[in-house]
Amino acid sequence: MRTRNVKNKKEIIESNPLVILEPKQYKGKWQEKFNNNNPIHIEIGMGKGQFIRTLAIENPNINYIGIERSDSVLALALKNIPQDITNLILLRMDANDLEDSFNHEVDTIYLNFSDPWPKKRHAKRRLTSQEFLKVYETVFKKDAHIIQKTDNYLLFEYSLEQLSKSGYIFNKVNLDLHKDEEQPNIKTEYEEKFSKKGFPIYRLDALKRLK
Amino acid sequence: MRTRNVKNKKEIIESNPLVILEPKQYKGKWQEKFNNNNPIHIEIGMGKGQFIRTLAIENPNINYIGIERSDSVLALALKNIPQDITNLILLRMDANDLEDSFNHEVDTIYLNFSDPWPKKRHAKRRLTSQEFLKVYETVFKKDAHIIQKTDNYLLFEYSLEQLSKSGYIFNKVNLDLHKDEEQPNIKTEYEEKFSKKGFPIYRLDALKRLK
Repeated sequence: MRTRNVKNKKEIIESNPLVILEPKQYKGKWQEKFNNNNPIHIEIGMGKGQFIRTLAIENPNINYIGIERSDSVLALALKNIPQDITNLILLRMDANDLEDSFNHEVDTIYLNFSDPWPKKRHAKRRLTSQEFLKVYETVFKKDAHIIQKTDNYLLFEYSLEQLSKSGYIFNKVNLDLHKDEEQPNIKTEYEEKFSKKGFPIYRLDALKRLK
Repeated sequence: MRTRNVKNKKEIIESNPLVILEPKQYKGKWQEKFNNNNPIHIEIGMGKGQFIRTLAIENPNINYIGIERSDSVLALALKNIPQDITNLILLRMDANDLEDSFNHEVDTIYLNFSDPWPKKRHAKRRLTSQEFLKVYETVFKKDAHIIQKTDNYLLFEYSLEQLSKSGYIFNKVNLDLHKDEEQPNIKTEYEEKFSKKGFPIYRLDALKRLK
């Protein structure tokens, strides 16, 4: 999602203790950083943060890490996060640096409305490519657990195929999420806008037992 | 799909040598019946037969078995099948009799626009329930290979979950089949009617290695 340039974004980000600018120094030490033994859930590409912020407020016994590579988006996200929150950290980071920043510490990965990279030659960049799935296995603590939402049916087809090929089992699949009254759902900013147009939102919850 | 009652349906069916009225007698002997060693593909719930008839005409080196429990529908299907066809047989049979009629002889099962059985208490009757998936393992020759199409997103969600839980891997998933120009597709009668309304058709191609 394109966002307007945010003035003073550097200052906003760098002055906020919720933001980690050099995540690599915490590799293997995230539990220590949170100062408890609660499970860690991360969102790769958190955008303006409504999703992970709401999760963090609703679930004080889970630690959340929101990852975003855009300074402007991160600065916008910070506006709505209560400063006294203790179970949410934001990383200014690209998904390609995951392996350098985590070492078997994460319980769940959220992927919300990721870039679909529609061209075949860019397929490796999709966050459910075999390349990324391999990286995630170095990030997950024990079992691999991915929850993905998207409005892009081509990306969702791809994810179903790739996750399945990699050994994931689908606990739950939604092909029209907002019609499923039994499925709890926290909307992202993008999702709210998009779903007003009446198009379906896809969601999957996939698990892989790691040895 | 409801079909009008066909007059003389019994006579039409019973007089046609393409129809097997008592499939159980051929259990373990379908290869013999076809008199060759070609692979056998079956369609459970063949309806008016356009799909399997077209496949049979286009692929003379594959043997096809269409299964249908309604006499009226079977009588209608027979109208359009060339009498000299040698690689197509029709069974007047209920899916519940599969285990009594096949013994590790089938390469591919097609499920097209099966009854979605929307109520939870009827879930076992869906053709991708764990109960049916277990039966299919007695039907498949070697690996289990299921190709399903449906317009019902709830049935498709269910199928993705159940097949995945049973160990199937998705070779291909289509969430809007008629938009995919690379995916060859033979339409059923129902599909032609339905897709004119503009709703998406879902398709999956799933494989499970059996020991």
